[in-house]
This record gives sequence, C-alpha cells and structure tokens, in this order.
Amino acid sequence: MASRPKLHYPNGRGRMESVRWVLAAAGVEFDEEFLETKEQLQKLQDGDHLLFQQVPMVEIDGMKLVQTRSILHYIAEKHQLFGRDLKERTLIDMYVEGTLDLLELLIMHPFLKPDDQQKEVANMAQKATIRYFPVFEKVLRSHGQTFLVGNQLSLADVILLQTILALEEKIPNILSAFPFLQEYSVKLSNIPTIKRFLEPGSKKKPPPDEIYLRTVYNVFML
Amino acid sequence: MASRPKLHYPNGRGRMESVRWVLAAAGVEFDEEFLETKEQLQKLQDGDHLLFQQVPMVEIDGMKLVQTRSILHYIAEKHQLFGRDLKERTLIDMYVEGTLDLLELLIMHPFLKPDDQQKEVANMAQKATIRYFPVFEKVLRSHGQTFLVGNQLSLADVILLQTILALEEKIPNILSAFPFLQEYSVKLSNIPTIKRFLEPGSKKKPPPDEIYLRTVYNVFML
Repeated sequence: MASRPKLHYPNGRGRMESVRWVLAAAGVEFDEEFLETKEQLQKLQDGDHLLFQQVPMVEIDGMKLVQTRSILHYIAEKHQLFGRDLKERTLIDMYVEGTLDLLELLIMHPFLKPDDQQKEVANMAQKATIRYFPVFEKVLRSHGQTFLVGNQLSLADVILLQTILALEEKIPNILSAFPFLQEYSVKLSNIPTIKRFLEPGSKKKPPPDEIYLRTVYNVFML
Repeated sequence: MASRPKLHYPNGRGRMESVRWVLAAAGVEFDEEFLETKEQLQKLQDGDHLLFQQVPMVEIDGMKLVQTRSILHYIAEKHQLFGRDLKERTLIDMYVEGTLDLLELLIMHPFLKPDDQQKEVANMAQKATIRYFPVFEKVLRSHGQTFLVGNQLSLADVILLQTILALEEKIPNILSAFPFLQEYSVKLSNIPTIKRFLEPGSKKKPPPDEIYLRTVYNVFML
C-alpha cells in the first residue's frame, strides 16, 4: 500500500509508544494525529473510526486497527518480526506478553497518587529484577545470540528494549545484575533503525510530563 | 504429539477458563492439575516450570506455555481457529482483545469488596451493551453468517460465547437488545464440541464460589 500508517493518540507514550517502537524498528515511516481534546476523540467515535470507541487506533493498509496487542501483532507479522514458525511465534508471544505486563506498570505509574508513585517504583524494580529480567538474561546466556528468538530481531526484542530503556529512566542501575541484558541493550540500540529512533528529533516520545497528564485527563476523563 | 495437554491452575474459572473453552471447542481432550496450596505453586516455580513464575500454565506439545493470550493464540493457530490470512487473523485478534477486556471485569469481579460488586455489575452491563455487543451485533447483521469472521468458527467466537454466557449468569437479559447475538449464541451453543462442554460433567467450571475464592487466596496471596 502506498500511504503511510497514521497513528491516533495523544502526544505522549501511553499505550501507543510500543506501536511507534515497532514501526520504527521495522523502518516504517508514519504520521501522527494527536488527540488533544475530548471533542476530537468524540469525532472519531461518532465517525465509527474506533471499533471499541477507544484509542490507540492506527490507520494502516486500508484498515483502522485498534487494541494495542492487535496492532503490534499485525505490524510484527507484516514485517517478519514474529518468528519463522509456530514454535518461534509462541516464544515471542510469551516474551511479549510478560514484558507488556511489566510495561503496563510503567504506563500506569504517572496516574498514581504522588504518595503511591515512589512505592510503585520499588514494586516495578522488584518485578523487573526478580520475575522478568532473570528469564531474558538466562535466554541470552544460554544461546549466546544477539536476539531473544531465532537469531533475528523480533517483536519480543523491540518491546523488551523499550521497557528496559523506560525503566532505566526511573531506575538507572536496573540492569546492574544482568550483564547479558546490558550487552543486548547496547547492541539493539545500535541497530540502524532503532538508533535513529533513539536520536533527538525522532517520533519517540519523552517521559510523561504535566502537559501529557493534563492532555490525557482532558481527552479521556473530563 | 501423543499426550494430552495438561492445565495447571486452581479448580475454578479465573484466567484458565478461556483455555478450557478453546480446547473444548477444538475437540481436544485435556487433563487438569489443580493448584490448592501455595506449596504446589512454589514447587512449580522452584522446578522452573513457570516462565514468569505464574499460572495459567499449560503443558502441550512438549512446551510449558504461560500467559493466557499466548496459550489461546497457540491453540487457536494449531486448530485453525485464527483465520485463513493476515486480514482475518487481525480481525479475530481485535475481536478477542476487546472481548478479553470485557471478560477481565468478570474475572476480577468476585475479588472486589462486597459493596463494590453490585456497582461493578452495572458497569459491566454498560460496557457490554454500549461498547462491545453493538460491534458484534453489527458484524453479524451485516454479513448474515453464523460466525464473526470468515464464515467459520474462530477464537473470537469462542471467547465471545464464553463471555456472553458468563455475563448472562449475572445479568440474564443482557442480550435483550441484540437479536443477532441471541441467535448467534444459540447456534454456537449447539456446535457438538461446545454443546458437550456446556453439559453437566464437562470440564467447564461453575461460577466462582466461596471455596474457589479461598483457594485463590491460599495459593496466591497467603
């Protein structure tokens, strides 16, 4: 298809940032339509553009995709980021699902009460270093390859790198006990498409700030 | 593979019931190992049987699958319940993701405080009848076929039927404004594999009761 994907979401990370990551990693240029008001969301809803009345929504290949996971799966499948057979796909799927559970904590964090935010950072650190990172460290150590599955970049790598870098913003030493993940993180960050996404001026969004929070309240909660 | 899948979870619905549904719909016989104590969970964790230390876990085809969605995707893919091409797969994926968001409310409901449970039933009814059911009613009306996607049974149908029947237990008239979903629900319930699953003595689990709640607390929270 000729046209570039168009992403509909507020101008911030939230549930769309993973989509931006996987498009960027696949080398796909995309456009964004930022939601800033409840009226804009209402207009999308009234025009029947949102299957379940919610964003993220991505216009791509003549479809209007919704539900973060479904969008990620479609893009991953289209760009050979979902393994070569059912066994690889299933491993990638499990790694992605686990990592998304961890990432979900990061997505919800800015919306917690201030008192709860610090506690939640400790919870995230614990979850990351006890439940999730040991799994990926062991995978990388055991096969000695650059990528998690099948010796090639997959959706699992993209979502894990996104999550590692976002966690490091809050907890700089989060990888200190995980040498293989440290090396992995550096190597992935140097893949040309990903490197460009990590450079200033890309469509990667900054950590959530007051303006983003206010926008989310305006669009979804007012 | 010769051996039957083995499901590891407490003896109740929770996050495993969708897996039971899709296996049953696919005509796959399976065994269950019910978790009743924290020690049993610990043993699975210590033996490295749970990738992220959590159940649901399903032993199948020599793998130990975790994460509900990954398990569902694998079974659906293996048993031709995930569409014939990427476009059908993506539709099924979106329908499943939306329905799982609704089902999640049902899964969490018994763990709410008693005061909040009644309010949450109203919330579920609203979500179902305003956000989700109109979408599926429209799909069925527009193409006039028995199934949601591609004129054949898919994961989307199985999860939607599971969700409809579970909602009807709480809100008997939930489909009153949706004639196509009523007919759909009856037709699906008469598919032989599903019909057997709906009959007494199957591995379908009853609505959560006090014993199930206590088991969940014993296994996961003590």
